[in-house]
Amino acid sequence: MRLAHISEFRARSESEAPLYKQLASHIRSLMTGGELREGERLPATRELAGLLGLNRTTVSAAYALLEEDGLLAGHVGRGSFVARPPKQSNAGETDWERILPPAETGFGAPPGEIAVSFATSRPPADAFPLTQFRRLAKQVIDGPDAAGILQLGSPHGYGPLRRYLLERATSQGVARDGDDILITNGCQQALDLAARLLAGEGTSVLLEDPVYPGVQKVFSRAGGESIPLRMDGDGIRIDELEAAIQQERPRLLVLTPSFQNPTGATLSLARRKAVVALAQRHGLIVVENDIYSELRYAGEALPPIKQLDGTGNTILLGSYSKVSFPGLRVGWVIGPRAVIARLAEAKQATDLHSDQLSQAVLLRFAESGELERHIERTRRAGAERLTAVLDACRRFLPKGTAFTRPEGGMSLWVELPAPVTAEHLLSRVRDKGVDFLPGRYFSSGREHLRGLRISFGGLSPADITSGLQIIGEAATKEMPAIPNKTVYDAVPALV
Amino acid sequence: MRLAHISEFRARSESEAPLYKQLASHIRSLMTGGELREGERLPATRELAGLLGLNRTTVSAAYALLEEDGLLAGHVGRGSFVARPPKQSNAGETDWERILPPAETGFGAPPGEIAVSFATSRPPADAFPLTQFRRLAKQVIDGPDAAGILQLGSPHGYGPLRRYLLERATSQGVARDGDDILITNGCQQALDLAARLLAGEGTSVLLEDPVYPGVQKVFSRAGGESIPLRMDGDGIRIDELEAAIQQERPRLLVLTPSFQNPTGATLSLARRKAVVALAQRHGLIVVENDIYSELRYAGEALPPIKQLDGTGNTILLGSYSKVSFPGLRVGWVIGPRAVIARLAEAKQATDLHSDQLSQAVLLRFAESGELERHIERTRRAGAERLTAVLDACRRFLPKGTAFTRPEGGMSLWVELPAPVTAEHLLSRVRDKGVDFLPGRYFSSGREHLRGLRISFGGLSPADITSGLQIIGEAATKEMPAIPNKTVYDAVPALV
Repeated sequence: MRLAHISEFRARSESEAPLYKQLASHIRSLMTGGELREGERLPATRELAGLLGLNRTTVSAAYALLEEDGLLAGHVGRGSFVARPPKQSNAGETDWERILPPAETGFGAPPGEIAVSFATSRPPADAFPLTQFRRLAKQVIDGPDAAGILQLGSPHGYGPLRRYLLERATSQGVARDGDDILITNGCQQALDLAARLLAGEGTSVLLEDPVYPGVQKVFSRAGGESIPLRMDGDGIRIDELEAAIQQERPRLLVLTPSFQNPTGATLSLARRKAVVALAQRHGLIVVENDIYSELRYAGEALPPIKQLDGTGNTILLGSYSKVSFPGLRVGWVIGPRAVIARLAEAKQATDLHSDQLSQAVLLRFAESGELERHIERTRRAGAERLTAVLDACRRFLPKGTAFTRPEGGMSLWVELPAPVTAEHLLSRVRDKGVDFLPGRYFSSGREHLRGLRISFGGLSPADITSGLQIIGEAATKEMPAIPNKTVYDAVPALV
Repeated sequence: MRLAHISEFRARSESEAPLYKQLASHIRSLMTGGELREGERLPATRELAGLLGLNRTTVSAAYALLEEDGLLAGHVGRGSFVARPPKQSNAGETDWERILPPAETGFGAPPGEIAVSFATSRPPADAFPLTQFRRLAKQVIDGPDAAGILQLGSPHGYGPLRRYLLERATSQGVARDGDDILITNGCQQALDLAARLLAGEGTSVLLEDPVYPGVQKVFSRAGGESIPLRMDGDGIRIDELEAAIQQERPRLLVLTPSFQNPTGATLSLARRKAVVALAQRHGLIVVENDIYSELRYAGEALPPIKQLDGTGNTILLGSYSKVSFPGLRVGWVIGPRAVIARLAEAKQATDLHSDQLSQAVLLRFAESGELERHIERTRRAGAERLTAVLDACRRFLPKGTAFTRPEGGMSLWVELPAPVTAEHLLSRVRDKGVDFLPGRYFSSGREHLRGLRISFGGLSPADITSGLQIIGEAATKEMPAIPNKTVYDAVPALV
């Protein structure tokens, strides 16, 4: 972004051309002059409008004009980019690189051998209920419903599974009268459908910061504006939430209140109640991503926000992926009937309906009691891993390091002391066979240069200990090796 | 839409206010005056711009301004609607109806008992390979890959299935060097991902007219502008395509060249070649929806457009849903690697990856040879049904009725003679236990008041005959009963 150049724009009041045309012509001249180059991203319309003291519609109109001329390429949720000039030769062949949005920077395949990877967030593999799956899946396949399962289904989902989940949610006080349920391909699709329905262009959405990249991406693709909310060990801070509501008039608040990915933080009961009250006062929709709450290894269970909310402002997202078989994609949304009806319309346009075989197998898994037994085993395995990871953090991480103390889930968050950055540390520990994801992957606002996610769920206690020993020793060693002149942002305490 | 009122707008050249503000203020006055009411849809920006002789960006800016003031609600792909004024009381509870887009008009549950339904497009149920499914699914469940299948997979799809499909497409000459494949949840998701990637706001997309509503919906939701292409018995007309390319400079052409839904029409070889040449000349991307071509019951097989296209302009969509088990959602996209990479990014943000159990079961089904045997059986069953439906159309439909002569697939298209409309006919035959979908569901442009889809794939030859007899008799009887004063549109010959 060349904010400096673009912000040189001055409206010529004597000009007959409307403001948006003047602005477009200013940007065009920057392209010709080479100050704005192919593939460069322009500031968001809101940002540029603020900078120039213009109305946002003026900036939008200027961008639209440049797009019409083929000089800008707009990509929903990613912003506007300086387009490549159309190729003159070879006109027959589609110039895909010109048409397509810029490729995302991936998580990057780790070079060399990785012995201990804290990079992927998954449940422990040793407790995997393969025998039970085989037995129950065969029951479904041989059962009387098999032919029906193989025929076209409903966009809302497989009837027997919907009834089971909604009755369960009602008996737990989570579903209210007039609520309905939609089955989705895991909770990722529930987020995507909700974002497309509720968070289009012109809406503001409050997101946790740091946040799971899958959440951030869904909302930026939908076209809404993401507003980051700072977190501490008890989840989002209510003072920040209140200030953001006042300033940004958001429509949506997206939260993972229990064992949030990446921090492992759990929103306290007091804060849950405060969220409900604020949502009620300001007509805010809460999207509650409740996919980890059953993976509690210590402490007391907390009610979901949906249960505390008597008003119908909250939509609850759940999933079997984190507590059973991640390769079977079955999640759900519970909310007021009007929302579920529109989400089901969107689901139909998106992929007709979710795969029915997996829905039927997971229903059998839940009804048979095997799911609950499996979750019990996962909790025991998770408790050992949680103990190991917290012990290792205390023992090996250098003085001044902060880390969250989750009571469940699959990951925790580390903040390194200045001047060590997570990227630098990663480059040091990869040679020794250890991998993790640095903080920048989890940004919905700040860069998290010194933050990193430790996903411990899928590792043995021994691997957790040895991996964190390597990380801790490297961090300790690297502290003085960083040149002083590097400038770091101020990192607030997270724990 | 109150085009009449809105088109009264006249720019005041003496005014200091920019044009878009003048237009916004005109629309605002129509709202105050009650000429535009809550929930009413405004004309598309392109349409209004054309009507008023304004630049489209001016209209967009006016709409954006009204949206900012909460007077309009814009919904991606559905247009702009006059918003409900915010409720003053009960501020705590989310006013879902105000926030949500208007509900779609569904296909409507048929009243009373339906004995013969031509309304759903599905394969014959009597050939359903349940025994084979049971045997092969158990092999997968007991197999060595079961644990891997249940773990988190790749956004691109299940590796062994991707290899199988891409090798098959390569050996058939359909996939080219440098092509890649992405597995999707049926072909509907492939369309949705392609639309979101390639057909956003500001792009024009050529669609068949009539067209499958799932195709139309996907592209209108993505925000692009749909341009309808008239069809005859040989698919889209090339003169129309050429004119539309000249006028609209579209980016995308979406086609179902074989046994198109709803018409059953197949694009002739000459027209396929003409499409390839035009796409090449104008840098047009062709999205080829090739989900019915294996269901050919008569005539010679035609090569897919992707195979004729030497340039990489064509993306091919395929699916197992129509030829095996519709309840298992497995489709795919084959295209240049750059496109597949971006589609896979979108897939990851949408739902991480497709369900792996179904992918593995369908791979086994294909590799074992059972899929090919099943398709053979389906072809034999389909041929009987096709003969029955064409015979019945000839015998029972009143003089002046036109209908397509498909050589495969699941449906054909009927155009009733004036003055009978499909809606009117439907109201008459439903009492007699017969159902079908009237033409308006398949519009991407014209209303198709006299068109209707006869989906014969899932019915027995006897039901097809008796159902069409009832339709034909009702149509014959209703012809003089329609009052003369009703005005009908001109319907071009379709066969």
